[in-house]
Amino acid sequence: MALQVKKFGGSSVATPEKIKRIAERVLAQKAPDDRIVIVVSAMGDSTDEMMSLARQCTHRVYGRELDMLLTTGEQTTIALLAMTLMELGHPAISLTGPQAGIQTDRAYGKGRILAIQPDRVFEALDAGNIVVVAGFQGLADNGDLITLGRGGSDTTAVALAGALQADVCEIFTDVEGVYSADPRVVPNAFKMQEITYGEMLEMARLGAGVMQPRAVEMGSRYHVPIHVRSTFADVGGTMIQEAYTVEDQGNRICGVAHDTNVTKVAVLGVDNRPGTAHMIFDCLAKSGIDVDMIVQSIRESDDSRTDIVFTISETDLPQAQEALAAFTGEEALPTILFTSHVAKISVVGAGMLGTPGVAARMFGALGAAGINIQIISTSEISISCLIDEADVEKAVACIHDTFL
Amino acid sequence: MALQVKKFGGSSVATPEKIKRIAERVLAQKAPDDRIVIVVSAMGDSTDEMMSLARQCTHRVYGRELDMLLTTGEQTTIALLAMTLMELGHPAISLTGPQAGIQTDRAYGKGRILAIQPDRVFEALDAGNIVVVAGFQGLADNGDLITLGRGGSDTTAVALAGALQADVCEIFTDVEGVYSADPRVVPNAFKMQEITYGEMLEMARLGAGVMQPRAVEMGSRYHVPIHVRSTFADVGGTMIQEAYTVEDQGNRICGVAHDTNVTKVAVLGVDNRPGTAHMIFDCLAKSGIDVDMIVQSIRESDDSRTDIVFTISETDLPQAQEALAAFTGEEALPTILFTSHVAKISVVGAGMLGTPGVAARMFGALGAAGINIQIISTSEISISCLIDEADVEKAVACIHDTFL
Repeated sequence: MALQVKKFGGSSVATPEKIKRIAERVLAQKAPDDRIVIVVSAMGDSTDEMMSLARQCTHRVYGRELDMLLTTGEQTTIALLAMTLMELGHPAISLTGPQAGIQTDRAYGKGRILAIQPDRVFEALDAGNIVVVAGFQGLADNGDLITLGRGGSDTTAVALAGALQADVCEIFTDVEGVYSADPRVVPNAFKMQEITYGEMLEMARLGAGVMQPRAVEMGSRYHVPIHVRSTFADVGGTMIQEAYTVEDQGNRICGVAHDTNVTKVAVLGVDNRPGTAHMIFDCLAKSGIDVDMIVQSIRESDDSRTDIVFTISETDLPQAQEALAAFTGEEALPTILFTSHVAKISVVGAGMLGTPGVAARMFGALGAAGINIQIISTSEISISCLIDEADVEKAVACIHDTFL
Repeated sequence: MALQVKKFGGSSVATPEKIKRIAERVLAQKAPDDRIVIVVSAMGDSTDEMMSLARQCTHRVYGRELDMLLTTGEQTTIALLAMTLMELGHPAISLTGPQAGIQTDRAYGKGRILAIQPDRVFEALDAGNIVVVAGFQGLADNGDLITLGRGGSDTTAVALAGALQADVCEIFTDVEGVYSADPRVVPNAFKMQEITYGEMLEMARLGAGVMQPRAVEMGSRYHVPIHVRSTFADVGGTMIQEAYTVEDQGNRICGVAHDTNVTKVAVLGVDNRPGTAHMIFDCLAKSGIDVDMIVQSIRESDDSRTDIVFTISETDLPQAQEALAAFTGEEALPTILFTSHVAKISVVGAGMLGTPGVAARMFGALGAAGINIQIISTSEISISCLIDEADVEKAVACIHDTFL
């Protein structure tokens, strides 16, 4: 007997036929004593359709009303899936995020789960039901409906698994698990049997799209083993958990991540005095722009001036240009250059802490392949290089060959 | 300064363009001090589309899950209308039925409003908003979403107007008001300026489709004046209220109603002893079938046998046949005949209580037109005749000519 939380994304529940396939699969794999909670997203393109309706009413973003609109998407899926499970002969009940006790802050469109009171989920499980919960949504303390930020349904599933002290949270997806590199780029990339929360978080942060960082964080905080696996193929996927169960696995690089949604910003000839960097990054933070790799270099020829180079998401480029335009022509920040078409490539592995020379091997491999490194940054369990976007496939392949 | 509740049905809010037209109209008519609550239904065909999705999942009716699904319809409309009002420059906020404090029983698909706690509506009005409330839905004491029965959005609007002690509840519809007869049948039928709750209730019960009886009842109970008027034309409609404001209006027949959704059931040769009628009607009641006109006649030739004739909705015919099949061949109820293609025609008016001879004039008019009367039934403010469905247009016209 196990308590399992299973999450299916929008493409897995895009039509009544697909919903039926999911229901059949869940029932086929269920042991008589298993207690099952299913978390689902909105059906296929329905969120896009709702956004299009909203845009026909206004081009402004009214967060509260948009959340009121979008939360209907998951509510539709849960009703249909619960009906389908009953049609197939198993008691089932659907619960909206609020009904499942998911409490959030009031940040419309990017809510964070503050707490979960899963009494009604337990009641429904005790009554013998499969419980179908709407992902991506919760209730604020003022009674408003709130949608969670990116990867919201993953976060719902993992947080709910934590609150229910579930044995496992299964994230069903269109790939078979977490790979050592993007299999579309590196044909001999392999599926990992297991990976730690820390490594997965770093992989996700550095561009591996399979899981959203927030959901992995949630798993780490509540000690929920997360099983990332295929919606379609009935094979094991990748377990994300506290530590490796196979010992020697921990002692190496686990994967290569890359991210092409990157823009390099170079602020050249900056006054080298206290407060200048703060001025730049405070201005970006106030516009809600995350800054990633940061390098400051002192010019040998003129130590009163310095260059500050950093990266941002390419999607944030228009806002960054607008925010930094305030400084144009200012004495303190004479030149600001934006460079798209760059990419970040990273190696990740808790093992690198005890393994000297990882950086050297990475730079060597890139150098041998004739790839120029623009910026380097490191964390405890990763090393990242900024390179030209045109080189990214070659870079991922040669680094994967070097380490894996 | 007035507190107004305005209700718009599904066809008035079928597209973003129509929603915009509604919003513009509401804003154009709003005095600066007016406090406005708008109740809306699901957009156009969206309920049908959801029913079709549900039918692709199951052919059974799972009431709780169906309500979970269908309540998304109004939730979509309120979000879009609130956005549109804001886009047009007026503060607005949407509230689901539960958020508006609408408490119902647990009767999925046919909920009844038990109470309304409109604190949040008042709060939102006090903050200067137009408040957009989802019709047709409420919250049961167990936290489940419930849809109201037929005419649900009208009921929401009138009940909310009662709870808010609104000055008026305006029901916007595709006709200009309540007519003395169906204008499609009687070209010289006229729009009534006013009508009492009692008369409107009787008109609605007897087939006038413009308002659902439950909503009229609600208006009567909470003393809410209901203004039935056109969504499209900016002219006054019909006021439904306690009593006539123009005195002599009360002293006459107010309208002619007809209903072709009728089937006649004749149970012939019934044992004339206590309990037989109860057996029949108890069996129908247990199948949820409403019985309307009932006539029992004793045969002159054989007073141990009697005939019982009554009418039901034609839509209930299959269930009635199934329910009464249990008695087939039983000694006590030898013959049961079902006759479709009948219609009920009625005159309604509180005035008939003080006006003798209304029945005689009605039967005379039908007789002169060569129309046979199959059953007659009367209430305090109406007289109804069951006739052949083929005669219904002629009958409505000649009775309208006689009385109005």
